[in-house]
Amino acid sequence: MDTHDLVAVSERRQKHVERVLAAFFSDSHYRAKALGAPYERLWETLERNASGGKRFRPRMVMAAYESLGGTDHDAAAHIGAAFELLHTALIVHDDVIDRDFVRRGGPNVSGRYRDIATTAGIPLPVAEHRGMSVAIIAGDLALFNSYRLIDRSGVDGLLRTRLHDILDEAMFVSAAGELYDVDFSIRSDPPTVDEIVEMERLKTAGYSFEGPLVAGSVLAGAEPAAVDALATFGRDIGIAYQIVDDLLGVFGDESDTGKTTLGDLREGKRTVLLAHATAQPEWAEVSGLFGSPDLTEADAARIRSVLESAGSRRFAEALARDFANRAWEALVNDSLPDSVREEFRPIVASVLGRVR
Amino acid sequence: MDTHDLVAVSERRQKHVERVLAAFFSDSHYRAKALGAPYERLWETLERNASGGKRFRPRMVMAAYESLGGTDHDAAAHIGAAFELLHTALIVHDDVIDRDFVRRGGPNVSGRYRDIATTAGIPLPVAEHRGMSVAIIAGDLALFNSYRLIDRSGVDGLLRTRLHDILDEAMFVSAAGELYDVDFSIRSDPPTVDEIVEMERLKTAGYSFEGPLVAGSVLAGAEPAAVDALATFGRDIGIAYQIVDDLLGVFGDESDTGKTTLGDLREGKRTVLLAHATAQPEWAEVSGLFGSPDLTEADAARIRSVLESAGSRRFAEALARDFANRAWEALVNDSLPDSVREEFRPIVASVLGRVR
Repeated sequence: MDTHDLVAVSERRQKHVERVLAAFFSDSHYRAKALGAPYERLWETLERNASGGKRFRPRMVMAAYESLGGTDHDAAAHIGAAFELLHTALIVHDDVIDRDFVRRGGPNVSGRYRDIATTAGIPLPVAEHRGMSVAIIAGDLALFNSYRLIDRSGVDGLLRTRLHDILDEAMFVSAAGELYDVDFSIRSDPPTVDEIVEMERLKTAGYSFEGPLVAGSVLAGAEPAAVDALATFGRDIGIAYQIVDDLLGVFGDESDTGKTTLGDLREGKRTVLLAHATAQPEWAEVSGLFGSPDLTEADAARIRSVLESAGSRRFAEALARDFANRAWEALVNDSLPDSVREEFRPIVASVLGRVR
Repeated sequence: MDTHDLVAVSERRQKHVERVLAAFFSDSHYRAKALGAPYERLWETLERNASGGKRFRPRMVMAAYESLGGTDHDAAAHIGAAFELLHTALIVHDDVIDRDFVRRGGPNVSGRYRDIATTAGIPLPVAEHRGMSVAIIAGDLALFNSYRLIDRSGVDGLLRTRLHDILDEAMFVSAAGELYDVDFSIRSDPPTVDEIVEMERLKTAGYSFEGPLVAGSVLAGAEPAAVDALATFGRDIGIAYQIVDDLLGVFGDESDTGKTTLGDLREGKRTVLLAHATAQPEWAEVSGLFGSPDLTEADAARIRSVLESAGSRRFAEALARDFANRAWEALVNDSLPDSVREEFRPIVASVLGRVR
């Protein structure tokens, strides 16, 4: 397939997922309306928070499914939408845990409800807690309903139970990763590279890559060896992706990534890059700057320079490459048809293309 | 049935639910172990938080089911356990929203993780946020897994889908109630009696009474008229129960209810009792005391005296009686066998027996 076809396929999948989610939210609005206007507004806010993304997880489900020969696009779009809603739920609650009130440049659920309260004259700490409280409720709704989207897929019997099990496992693993992330934030000693990799595998890679790929292949009726190969691919490419994401958060081109490269440094985000750096003697020069909320562009430049000279950038890039190569090896497996490799080669290439 | 038999039946049901929940938690511990000891400890904490209750909701499911002739006790116990786990999830998240760190005299999830952090030398505000963060994760796990308990019931096909729908509706309605409760807490004007009744119906009565009764009767294969009658009964008795609970929170005998009668007054809990009182001129005398965290026993006595003289206690008692009587009328319905009335008469009597 040439690039033009790839883009067309990806857009077709994304549009299909959008339709499934729009139908779900439309039904939910209708149900919420009967319980009062404020509840309807909460659902509108949740829908707005769930939109605008690239529908990455659904596209993973559909890519695995279609490349393994699946033809029930609507079922795959519903299973994909279930992972998307799980993602929304986890993000909304993660923002409460991180006390973030902004996402993608606009207010998130917490931010929107905090702002409504401050506009009504409520003092900021009370308004913030109110925003976080509503976000807990909104995340609960997204979480509970992610399960129901599988029920709306038209799949039933044992296959539906297996898909429920896969979504369940994805959520179960992500909760463990979130717990470890919370633990890191209050620990006095910085986490090691291995601990960060494990946390990122659990918290993000599981439900973003492995779970969707396993769901798509199971839905396609793939044999166990093929499902396992895609699971391994998902785990490794997911970690590679996360490391690249963390690198871009510090060294990326803002006009390209669309987000500031100061955010992660101000927040003191725990990444592979930083786990490597904090173990090097050079780190002492800048450790006081890292995690400071009023870090300047000049401070950031000093930190970046230490990350380069201490070899942390090189280390993280090599690790991402290793995981991406290992992921590719998992796909070189007799149980998988060429169409699977054709489908996922661009993803591996995109990861490798973003590290030097 | 005489009282002795009633107690025996109730104990048998409770024990059955305990076994179902114990099996679920045992499986979850086993799965969590593979992801590390801290995650296993989180599951232990969640199990401890889910235990010690009277298993009220499961007993409602089983009471409806058995009184309508159902004989698959194990299926009913699983559906009951699903509502119990939903209850655990909602309570854990409600405690985060209310910033409560204690439940039933011991630390709740937030409290336990806050205490671990303070013991490790973490400052209190950070430790509290850590406790609340872990409680968000724990509540998410309970919420997601409540569905799975229906999947473990052995029921499948259309009936399982209907049971999923009923649990879904219960959670959907409770989220609306929680939203209105949060809204009341930041509003300047006190909520009216009607608003409180509606909030309590949504937040608590739906998933504690109506949902379990509907689930039990659907599982028993009851005809629509019978399901509707039990739904109406559940809604009304649930509101009556909640009003009585609020009355006992202020006027109850501590040795009987096991909780202090200062708590609700110190917290400034919004109840029918208070919604009536705040609209009376006498309230001005004590409005400054209500909701004060260091309210004394003497202050409480003054508030109670105003609640009596303003007629608020009498009003709330009459309202509870009305709802309980209306609930009973719903059971006097040709679609329901006598066994259903026999089953639920003691519950109506217990509500009526607690108001003068």
